[in-house]
Amino acid sequence: MLSTMQDVPLTVTRILRHGATVHGRSEVVTWTGEGEPHRRSFAEIGERSAQLAHALRDDLGVGRGDRVATLMWNNAEHVEAYFAAPCMGAVLHTLNLRLPSEQLVWIVGHAADRVVLVNGTLLPLLAPLLPRLETVEHVVVVGPGDTSVLDGCRPAVHAYEDLLAGKPTTYDWPELDEREAAAMCYTSGTTGDPKGVVYSHRSIYLHAMQVNLAESMGLTDADITLPVVPMFHVNAWGLPHAVFMTGVGMLMPDRFLQPAPLAEMIETVRPTHAAAVPTIWQGLLAELAQKARDITSLRTVTIGGSACPPAMMRAFEDQYGIRVCHAWGMTETSPLGSLAHPPGGLTPEEEWPYRISQGRFPAGVEARLVGPDGDFKPWDGESAGELEVRGPWIAGAYYGGADGEPERPEDKFSPDGWLRTGDVGVITPDGYLTLTDRAKDVIKSGGEWISSVELENHLMAHDAVAEAAVVAVPDERWGERPLAVVVLAEGGADVTYEELRAFLADRIARWQLPERWTQIGEVPKTSVGKFDKKVLRAQYAARELEITTVGG
Amino acid sequence: MLSTMQDVPLTVTRILRHGATVHGRSEVVTWTGEGEPHRRSFAEIGERSAQLAHALRDDLGVGRGDRVATLMWNNAEHVEAYFAAPCMGAVLHTLNLRLPSEQLVWIVGHAADRVVLVNGTLLPLLAPLLPRLETVEHVVVVGPGDTSVLDGCRPAVHAYEDLLAGKPTTYDWPELDEREAAAMCYTSGTTGDPKGVVYSHRSIYLHAMQVNLAESMGLTDADITLPVVPMFHVNAWGLPHAVFMTGVGMLMPDRFLQPAPLAEMIETVRPTHAAAVPTIWQGLLAELAQKARDITSLRTVTIGGSACPPAMMRAFEDQYGIRVCHAWGMTETSPLGSLAHPPGGLTPEEEWPYRISQGRFPAGVEARLVGPDGDFKPWDGESAGELEVRGPWIAGAYYGGADGEPERPEDKFSPDGWLRTGDVGVITPDGYLTLTDRAKDVIKSGGEWISSVELENHLMAHDAVAEAAVVAVPDERWGERPLAVVVLAEGGADVTYEELRAFLADRIARWQLPERWTQIGEVPKTSVGKFDKKVLRAQYAARELEITTVGG
Repeated sequence: MLSTMQDVPLTVTRILRHGATVHGRSEVVTWTGEGEPHRRSFAEIGERSAQLAHALRDDLGVGRGDRVATLMWNNAEHVEAYFAAPCMGAVLHTLNLRLPSEQLVWIVGHAADRVVLVNGTLLPLLAPLLPRLETVEHVVVVGPGDTSVLDGCRPAVHAYEDLLAGKPTTYDWPELDEREAAAMCYTSGTTGDPKGVVYSHRSIYLHAMQVNLAESMGLTDADITLPVVPMFHVNAWGLPHAVFMTGVGMLMPDRFLQPAPLAEMIETVRPTHAAAVPTIWQGLLAELAQKARDITSLRTVTIGGSACPPAMMRAFEDQYGIRVCHAWGMTETSPLGSLAHPPGGLTPEEEWPYRISQGRFPAGVEARLVGPDGDFKPWDGESAGELEVRGPWIAGAYYGGADGEPERPEDKFSPDGWLRTGDVGVITPDGYLTLTDRAKDVIKSGGEWISSVELENHLMAHDAVAEAAVVAVPDERWGERPLAVVVLAEGGADVTYEELRAFLADRIARWQLPERWTQIGEVPKTSVGKFDKKVLRAQYAARELEITTVGG
Repeated sequence: MLSTMQDVPLTVTRILRHGATVHGRSEVVTWTGEGEPHRRSFAEIGERSAQLAHALRDDLGVGRGDRVATLMWNNAEHVEAYFAAPCMGAVLHTLNLRLPSEQLVWIVGHAADRVVLVNGTLLPLLAPLLPRLETVEHVVVVGPGDTSVLDGCRPAVHAYEDLLAGKPTTYDWPELDEREAAAMCYTSGTTGDPKGVVYSHRSIYLHAMQVNLAESMGLTDADITLPVVPMFHVNAWGLPHAVFMTGVGMLMPDRFLQPAPLAEMIETVRPTHAAAVPTIWQGLLAELAQKARDITSLRTVTIGGSACPPAMMRAFEDQYGIRVCHAWGMTETSPLGSLAHPPGGLTPEEEWPYRISQGRFPAGVEARLVGPDGDFKPWDGESAGELEVRGPWIAGAYYGGADGEPERPEDKFSPDGWLRTGDVGVITPDGYLTLTDRAKDVIKSGGEWISSVELENHLMAHDAVAEAAVVAVPDERWGERPLAVVVLAEGGADVTYEELRAFLADRIARWQLPERWTQIGEVPKTSVGKFDKKVLRAQYAARELEITTVGG
């Protein structure tokens, strides 16, 4: 039996129309680094989005489904692109300006971007790549910058404000299917080529609603949010869409992401909420210790990207009355996967175990833990499994290129369509997630998983150990067993493997204790400083490590 | 270009699964009128919903799309029916126990309800109707009550707990299309037959998200809500679905809707939020003046159904620190249409004009004002038009019966599919709605609308006037003109129509001044005490009123 409700699509256009009218007075405030910050109302952004859409269609020939790339900081013009491209039926493709050149070139080609909007201050980054960006026909320069670096380049070059000037401030936005592509973002992919996630109008709309739920960020038009997280990083966690839905003001840092200007803009514009990765906030704490600034307008800071050290959470709370809320997500989850608000009715101390977890799933995110043998693990807070998620703002495939079919690699998508996150963790009965390891690093032993990270943390807590890495090695009886690789601390040369093993035995289950041990001078690291366990596994396979067997 | 996101339907089943697991410890607390209130966890409700679904399918033969009616108060068992019926693919049909018997009989027949779940305490209402409820095959009695009134009735009679006993506590819920019917509710329809609105899984899901937005009711699992609004009244404004999405506790008053037990249950269970029509809260104020109770656990009360007198809003705020928030909606809008939170950054006094309006539209509700000639009126806070709305939880048709096509009467749905609300009002530039009249009562004069309610209010402010009704009468030149019908107050016999007209002239635009005046002994009223303007218009048409022409 069918319902009698209207069949109205959930589109970014609906968000834009609403924000530019009902919340037309709300503002995007862009930090300029000198003098007064730049203020632009949602109503003006609505008008300028229409002008940009006219320019894209009429001057640059952008059509339905064409990709419009941005290489931009967080600022009002980037918000205009966020709405103009999807609402006209094109696809916004945000380029991560921190990627290596090779990856940027590959990504632009794979997405077949026809237009690149670029902040003038980022031209030094773009210009050298242009000869290799073969699909790009137009470069639109936004804001001041030295355009001489573009002299003689193949694509046509336009100035953003010149394109907009004189264009109509309304646009007859097309009726779109909510499942059409609205925006795309590539994962940075440490192995293999980057993978493109294509967000739909529907997924963006539902995700923006979730961001606005009281249980999530819960902002209203009495708030101002500061997305320090870049707009090229999973849609700035959906904040630009969320604020147009509810009239929340938005402070945009542009390129001023260093602790000193961040502290200054918080003191000046007085945001009530911010969203960023932990390192940014660690730097802010250090800056404030050197030079006092009033950042007490902030009530909540949502932290994602990686786990936030509890000491830092306490420092913000004790020194500035700012509550830090952990969130977990990834490019494939739009990104809101879970959020660590504790359950109601607890004392502050009782709240901590919940607050340092990755958080609780919202109704839109179904989760399950899959063990090494494909069995589902219970939500008992102890049984570890790879986290798989399902929901209307979760990716079910990767972009296969302009002429290709969507890609569903087996290691990323289960046969029944769930996303394999590559993270291993446990879930409490009330739905709080704690991640314990990456799936590629976890040790599969006799049908159970042993967390390499947990073993490493315990080992490194021993005075004699400077560094420790634990990797899986093949084992005839158990499938895999942990190999403990230790770097001894100065003065730790006397310790024996037996002693280290006994030390672990007090802290973990007996069956998880490593039998294989080795000692090296330094743990090999990746370019970003993480333990490079691939190298250790290869060295073990090539018998380059001297193994001592203890116990077992 | 298609997105790569998962295609996951928005269903009530997803809400149930989430609430019964992640928020399994949250509780529905049902007031029993004596002793401790009854507490049931969301996890238990999830299990019992599964049991009920087994009983409905296996014992009573309920299949996909079949209507399962409820004639019940707000209690935990009603919540179980709210989830069991839609999640198994059937359709929950909530019966309004305050409707006249004739309408109830008609509605059950039109919906072709096969099963009625009825609270034992409501059997005296149901039993006499049963012989005429021809489609009903099963009556399920929930809770205590005198079942002897069912002796010899045609439908099979079952006890709710007997049906559930021993059934499996899990159910293999079917995969549903989000556009399938989940629940239905009939408008009480003052003219013509009642009209059935059929909510979809999608509309209920999206509406529940909106209820949970910080800009709406904004509750979290630290809250307990008290839906005084009945579950047979537009899904208790979506609260049962909303709380399962976010773990908000729910205090259910069952049949104890009188001021004294309401005050007692608030003091005992300490809800933080409540939802009700204004008359209930007026009664609560009077009760508290007589017998003090601690109701300060309440922070916010959402008031809908009709406009709440500002004096009452101030009384709750000043005496108890409880903020009253106006909401507007109707059966056709699920019902959340608008909510009167003021914009941020205002002083308390500046907030009042916003707070006494019908409120601001959320992103999910598009609105437009249509003038008497079909022209769209601007959002300037002054131009009046009939409110039309569009959105994913707004009805686009009425149920046409088991074998009929959906009905789209012209006076309720525009050709392009918007809902005609029948309300006339104005909208401010920032999207706040103020309703001024019903469309059927407004006077269409020379392409503009004159509010009958506004004229009446001004006239009744004159000392010589006891009551005043203003109705539209045909006019050759202007189409329609207002006829002022007055009942003079004691001691007001000396006033002249010229004086009353001059009194109005100081308060309204000149072109709105009535030329036709008449005096009667009493304004005819409907059964619920509203002015019956139909009667006055008929009397005018039949020349039964003595008309004096003044000015014009």
